[in-house]
Amino acid sequence: MPLLGQDLSGALSRRVAILGPGLIGGSLALALSRSGQPWRVSVWARREEAALEAAALLPHCRVSRDLPTVLAGCDIAVLCMSPQAIQHCGEDLKKHLPAAATLTDAGSVKANIVDALESTFGGRFIGAHPMAGSEQSGIRAARADLFEGATCILTPTARSEARPLQNTRELWMATGCQLREMSPPDHDRAIARVSHLPHAAASCLVHAAIARDPSLSDLAGPGYRDSTRVAGGPEGMWTEILFDNRHEVVEGIHDLQNTLETLKLALEQGDRQGVEAILADARKLRSKHPITK
Amino acid sequence: MPLLGQDLSGALSRRVAILGPGLIGGSLALALSRSGQPWRVSVWARREEAALEAAALLPHCRVSRDLPTVLAGCDIAVLCMSPQAIQHCGEDLKKHLPAAATLTDAGSVKANIVDALESTFGGRFIGAHPMAGSEQSGIRAARADLFEGATCILTPTARSEARPLQNTRELWMATGCQLREMSPPDHDRAIARVSHLPHAAASCLVHAAIARDPSLSDLAGPGYRDSTRVAGGPEGMWTEILFDNRHEVVEGIHDLQNTLETLKLALEQGDRQGVEAILADARKLRSKHPITK
Repeated sequence: MPLLGQDLSGALSRRVAILGPGLIGGSLALALSRSGQPWRVSVWARREEAALEAAALLPHCRVSRDLPTVLAGCDIAVLCMSPQAIQHCGEDLKKHLPAAATLTDAGSVKANIVDALESTFGGRFIGAHPMAGSEQSGIRAARADLFEGATCILTPTARSEARPLQNTRELWMATGCQLREMSPPDHDRAIARVSHLPHAAASCLVHAAIARDPSLSDLAGPGYRDSTRVAGGPEGMWTEILFDNRHEVVEGIHDLQNTLETLKLALEQGDRQGVEAILADARKLRSKHPITK
Repeated sequence: MPLLGQDLSGALSRRVAILGPGLIGGSLALALSRSGQPWRVSVWARREEAALEAAALLPHCRVSRDLPTVLAGCDIAVLCMSPQAIQHCGEDLKKHLPAAATLTDAGSVKANIVDALESTFGGRFIGAHPMAGSEQSGIRAARADLFEGATCILTPTARSEARPLQNTRELWMATGCQLREMSPPDHDRAIARVSHLPHAAASCLVHAAIARDPSLSDLAGPGYRDSTRVAGGPEGMWTEILFDNRHEVVEGIHDLQNTLETLKLALEQGDRQGVEAILADARKLRSKHPITK
């Protein structure tokens, strides 16, 4: 049955199980616990410390380290762990996820995850990727409005069933996200360019900017700060993400190297028109589709 | 005589002439016109349209297109045009700048400018570079608090005279800047890494991220937005800046290409430790010297 809408079962609330109370899982729990929302939220944490922190920071949620307890009776479960953990949790999860429950996730790379979880759960797994976050990590950075106005990409496939897809749409819309839908490979190709490559570039830029003299950052202004902000993200998770989307990321780095080479040659050869064209095209490309969130 | 402090001349105000009412010149005029400030501000604009706009937006300043009128009787003049215009304005300026006036500027590259203006004005020119700005340009983006908490680098040399240096310090401190002092070549080397290279990288990243499919930016989140923000800056001015500091910028691009190559190879070779080390070092380097402004 659908989670929202013509639900004739008499249930007045929707039960969601959130696995992994980090920045994304914690923010999702906060967003769905806001007053007026019909959700009852249960949260699973693997580590005791994480469970205690989640319990303290998510007073309206039931927090437990016992997976069967958290999953019992849920309508929809959301995997908010790292991409690798999401990809490999299928067997454990299958024992305890109610047979009618929808399963979705928040992983940043989709093809590997959708392949793995569709093979275990079939059409009731619907991949999702909310395009929100920050360079911070962990539940202490979580915010109820993290998803407001952000894009959430859903990646249904030919195997996806209609009701789980609709349930997943309703869940992410309840957080304030705008929905987009595309195939898992299309998602990975696009996100390599607008998320994974910018992260790789920001990290390399920090090295090139200040590695030889870290005190240079004392001189840095808002340009350096913003250009390198994402490089403050947790390296363990980002290593996983870059490897999970390795083929696309490598191609993106290759393109970035080529554009840098063109710019460098134009500077060396005194080609002012060439330099200005690169900067002008970038300004126009960027301003054509302004990013509001 | 010093502009502030033990001034026994009886003058109750300081006269500053600002040449070029763009983002920086306009913000400087607003900052120095705030109530409680002892400055009387005159503004020179080359184009009629710019003069009319400045007159409308800077009600407490005298605005004119006539250079002798603006410079007459000033204690200090501040060159806020593009780096090329600053570098080549010496002869015109010399005819009208009062003999006792201090001269300073706000250009982003210092060695060329200091060479050119010291050869015309000797030790009463003091190079300055307030590390503030935005991807926006023009006086409509000007803000009285643009410089609050920002670093302003002064680049005195062996030729600099004591009073003009002190006058320049007092001027920029009055805007809310924190002062740093270093030689012009040291400035250019440092700023290549924390400002010019990030700009070049952001522009190239826009190309690599979305040139083949600009609609991808519809999917972009805050990471892409911040990583590429500075690429929205005016290409004419930035082409000048990159050329004025060409040697240092080319070296920076070379280092960035090398780090990208190391990261790409580690991804291709499945070297997770290598990838994680690059990301971890970047995170640590960046967090060691957090940027508050």
